[in-house]
Amino acid sequence: MTTMSVQEFKSVLKTEAASVEEYLSTCLHNRNIPQRLLDSMEYSLLAGGKRLRPVLCLAVAAMFGVKKEQVMPFASAIECIHSYSLIHDDLPAMDDDDLRRGKPSNHKAFDEATAILAGDGLLTEAFVLMTETAENLPADSVLTALNTMASAAGSGGMVGGQQLDMDFTGRNDVSLEELQTMHAMKTGALIRCSCECGAILGGAGTEDQERIRTYGANIGAAFQIVDDILDEIGTEEELGKPVGSDLEQGKNTYPSMLGIEKSRELAQGLVNSAVKQLAVFDGSDALFLRTLAQYIVDRVS
Amino acid sequence: MTTMSVQEFKSVLKTEAASVEEYLSTCLHNRNIPQRLLDSMEYSLLAGGKRLRPVLCLAVAAMFGVKKEQVMPFASAIECIHSYSLIHDDLPAMDDDDLRRGKPSNHKAFDEATAILAGDGLLTEAFVLMTETAENLPADSVLTALNTMASAAGSGGMVGGQQLDMDFTGRNDVSLEELQTMHAMKTGALIRCSCECGAILGGAGTEDQERIRTYGANIGAAFQIVDDILDEIGTEEELGKPVGSDLEQGKNTYPSMLGIEKSRELAQGLVNSAVKQLAVFDGSDALFLRTLAQYIVDRVS
Repeated sequence: MTTMSVQEFKSVLKTEAASVEEYLSTCLHNRNIPQRLLDSMEYSLLAGGKRLRPVLCLAVAAMFGVKKEQVMPFASAIECIHSYSLIHDDLPAMDDDDLRRGKPSNHKAFDEATAILAGDGLLTEAFVLMTETAENLPADSVLTALNTMASAAGSGGMVGGQQLDMDFTGRNDVSLEELQTMHAMKTGALIRCSCECGAILGGAGTEDQERIRTYGANIGAAFQIVDDILDEIGTEEELGKPVGSDLEQGKNTYPSMLGIEKSRELAQGLVNSAVKQLAVFDGSDALFLRTLAQYIVDRVS
Repeated sequence: MTTMSVQEFKSVLKTEAASVEEYLSTCLHNRNIPQRLLDSMEYSLLAGGKRLRPVLCLAVAAMFGVKKEQVMPFASAIECIHSYSLIHDDLPAMDDDDLRRGKPSNHKAFDEATAILAGDGLLTEAFVLMTETAENLPADSVLTALNTMASAAGSGGMVGGQQLDMDFTGRNDVSLEELQTMHAMKTGALIRCSCECGAILGGAGTEDQERIRTYGANIGAAFQIVDDILDEIGTEEELGKPVGSDLEQGKNTYPSMLGIEKSRELAQGLVNSAVKQLAVFDGSDALFLRTLAQYIVDRVS
């Protein structure tokens, strides 16, 4: 089997996402979390989404022969980190977004203090979940993956990218290179790292880890370009928020710098490079990962 | 040597704090952090303070024969967590404090978005630092300590305690038990865990870990009672913020519930129980930890 139909791919993606969903739905229970805080954390964590990051982590680990159940706490931790970042990004002091996935954003559904704490809580519980992976996998792999994840999510990665995004907003002299650096940190780092941690936890060798790292970095970059394009040409229903909100906020985007067509080409080039990295791997998980890469750009073609 | 003079104790405390300070002053460098974010993180992290939590962690580990340098990244990580919690607690949506240690609070010196991100960044870098302890110590001890720390700092610990504090503020029917639970989570968990992680990283056995855990929980509880008393009877210079700000914000405090004298007695009782836990240990580090416990209540006598 060397190709996978779109229908088949979507069915696998759905099954994988459902298993993540099931784990997420109870992973914060029995942890002595005050009720209002737990409600707020789960409001955002269980608000849907494709669960792309954990699914990537699970598929990569499986490609190296490690069972998905073994990696599940770690993979779910990545979704907790993603969810916290959305809560904090939506805050009035940041992007001031009232809607997220078509529902009131966390600080609108609860209040600002609770939203800040729900974000802090999800970020911290993510590290509890990561350590719980050590029940199934060697402690040194778990520590290496955790270090990689904290670095990618932190101030030299995702958090730093959000800071750059704030700094760049409203500036009209941002270069393409600056935009790429910002997105590589803000969105790219976590997607790259989801793949990379799958490889580390899967026991991949150094060369294979590097291949997966490059695959992840490329699809992460493509993902953001596509997101920028969708913000311009998507429907409010697809986006879960008003169309064109990036531009309205004075944000620099790929389409505003390069135009839609050039942006699409850039994304396709990145996906091609990503797929190339997987040439040495076979089996259904490798096929799924190759198809997933192409699926990212197909959303806007 | 079975006692330590106040002068001697303060001199040891100062030396230990200085070694933590030195480590903190460079631990965020060379991590690719955008300049404004780094400035904001260091503004709060390097704003002084007694460095009580890392010093506790180092002294406990040393009592079990592990060198302070080996535990330093982990101990410093605790200060990063403490620092992040102060930044987020001061935000307008939370306690809305303009001053911290006599200087403008982080969101006043920078802006709200940067302060939120500086907190997020410090919390995440803390986990990077913790994993770096594994260069000197066994991976499984580091993972156990990291799990304990994340649980204590998270939504079932410190973050959850802040949520309860918000929920209780302005309510006039909060019971003493509720107040104690809130403080055990908000302030107590991190102080207890600083001691506990010192024991775990020091390779202490289960019984000794339990003794240290109880020591830490008791001094943590005493510390908060003393803080509440100081908020009423201290000077603005000692506090670094206006006297009586807790009461003004409608917060429930030990003195408001029990009166100053009963609060003092409660704190002294907790310190006595803490000191008792250390009876089986000897050496200069045990003596330091015993003296430190008493020092906490001596601040208000």
